[in-house]
Amino acid sequence: FVSLLFSAIIVYRLPWTWKCSKLLMKFIHAGLNTIAMILAIISMVAVFEFHNAKSIPNMYSLHSWIGLTAVIFYSLQLLLGFAVFLLPFAPVHLRVVLMPIHVYSGLTIFATVIATALMGITEKLIFSLKNPAYSASPPEATLVNCLGLLLVLFGSLILWMASRPHWKRPPAENTKILPPIAATPEGTEVESTMINSSNADKSDLRINTEAAREQNSKFDEAGQRSTM
Amino acid sequence: FVSLLFSAIIVYRLPWTWKCSKLLMKFIHAGLNTIAMILAIISMVAVFEFHNAKSIPNMYSLHSWIGLTAVIFYSLQLLLGFAVFLLPFAPVHLRVVLMPIHVYSGLTIFATVIATALMGITEKLIFSLKNPAYSASPPEATLVNCLGLLLVLFGSLILWMASRPHWKRPPAENTKILPPIAATPEGTEVESTMINSSNADKSDLRINTEAAREQNSKFDEAGQRSTM
Repeated sequence: FVSLLFSAIIVYRLPWTWKCSKLLMKFIHAGLNTIAMILAIISMVAVFEFHNAKSIPNMYSLHSWIGLTAVIFYSLQLLLGFAVFLLPFAPVHLRVVLMPIHVYSGLTIFATVIATALMGITEKLIFSLKNPAYSASPPEATLVNCLGLLLVLFGSLILWMASRPHWKRPPAENTKILPPIAATPEGTEVESTMINSSNADKSDLRINTEAAREQNSKFDEAGQRSTM
Repeated sequence: FVSLLFSAIIVYRLPWTWKCSKLLMKFIHAGLNTIAMILAIISMVAVFEFHNAKSIPNMYSLHSWIGLTAVIFYSLQLLLGFAVFLLPFAPVHLRVVLMPIHVYSGLTIFATVIATALMGITEKLIFSLKNPAYSASPPEATLVNCLGLLLVLFGSLILWMASRPHWKRPPAENTKILPPIAATPEGTEVESTMINSSNADKSDLRINTEAAREQNSKFDEAGQRSTM
């Protein structure tokens, strides 16, 4: 019953992403995802062993195709996240560019994993319930359907939490290294680059506010640099 | 083959949401969603008729449970959207509060519908392919699996487009009625309320910038008022 296991692992993932403000939080996020990846690999090996032992063909179903795609993207996500956001070599520009992509693909992979789990549950119910059949709605079918609905509810809640701007790590923690107007030696370099590149030809107060807004929100997302 | 039809309808929906800047765009968004709702109801009636004609029990599968939940939430979304954002009676405060919820539930319902379609495809392949069976990977199975993967790809693209801030309707169109600092008679009322409620106890320039940022982004989303 791999699909449920696989999704249960994901529980640990997302809430951390938007709370992480310190190096410790980044390590927790990366660590939990690494554990989830290891469990996903173990469960996939278990599926292949189970199929081979029972002489069931591998990788024929849509569930398996989408599941494998999700796992491949998940490992790419993990490797890229490790290389760019955890190792201290990546420049801030790169982090700023990659952070929205990292967040988007994390959430999309999460949603895809839930869809894969739902397909796995559907398959399992059809194949396992024979007497009485799934279509006769035995208590097991009702129970597992309820679990499936709860899985959707759980996924929606996580996506809600992850997409609320005010549940992001508060930007106040970056104030020390990134004052928005006053220029400290550390902040100036990137700040001026960003204002120049996006607003070089505009001049009124509104535009400055906009620039500060963009800059703040970008650094809110990528500004984990303060933890290095 | 309701699930595929149902998802194909959704094609028309989301791209419009974030491009709509005028009353016409709102009507297109509402109109397309109404058409989608009608088609969803027709297809659900077709499913029940088909099941009754073939003596297949109704509403036993996880696909049907999650699908029905999605349709119920979709109709609530449609009704609420119509009442709050299309009719001219709702106050701006209410629109500001409800817009993020409207956007979130629209996208979540969209993702749930795709998951439902994937479960429907899985069911259909298992039930229809008997000789050769689904597990023997006949060409039909491979073809439909590819369609399922394309459905996931399509969903991811839509969610990417819908979640990019710079693909939102440009805020410049609101400038006329909502200058961020200068107070016109129309803009002042709500603006001051929001600054007072969220930032009454803070005073430096950074905080003002933050307030302007929040206020701008809220009005970017809810500011459809300009079209009324």
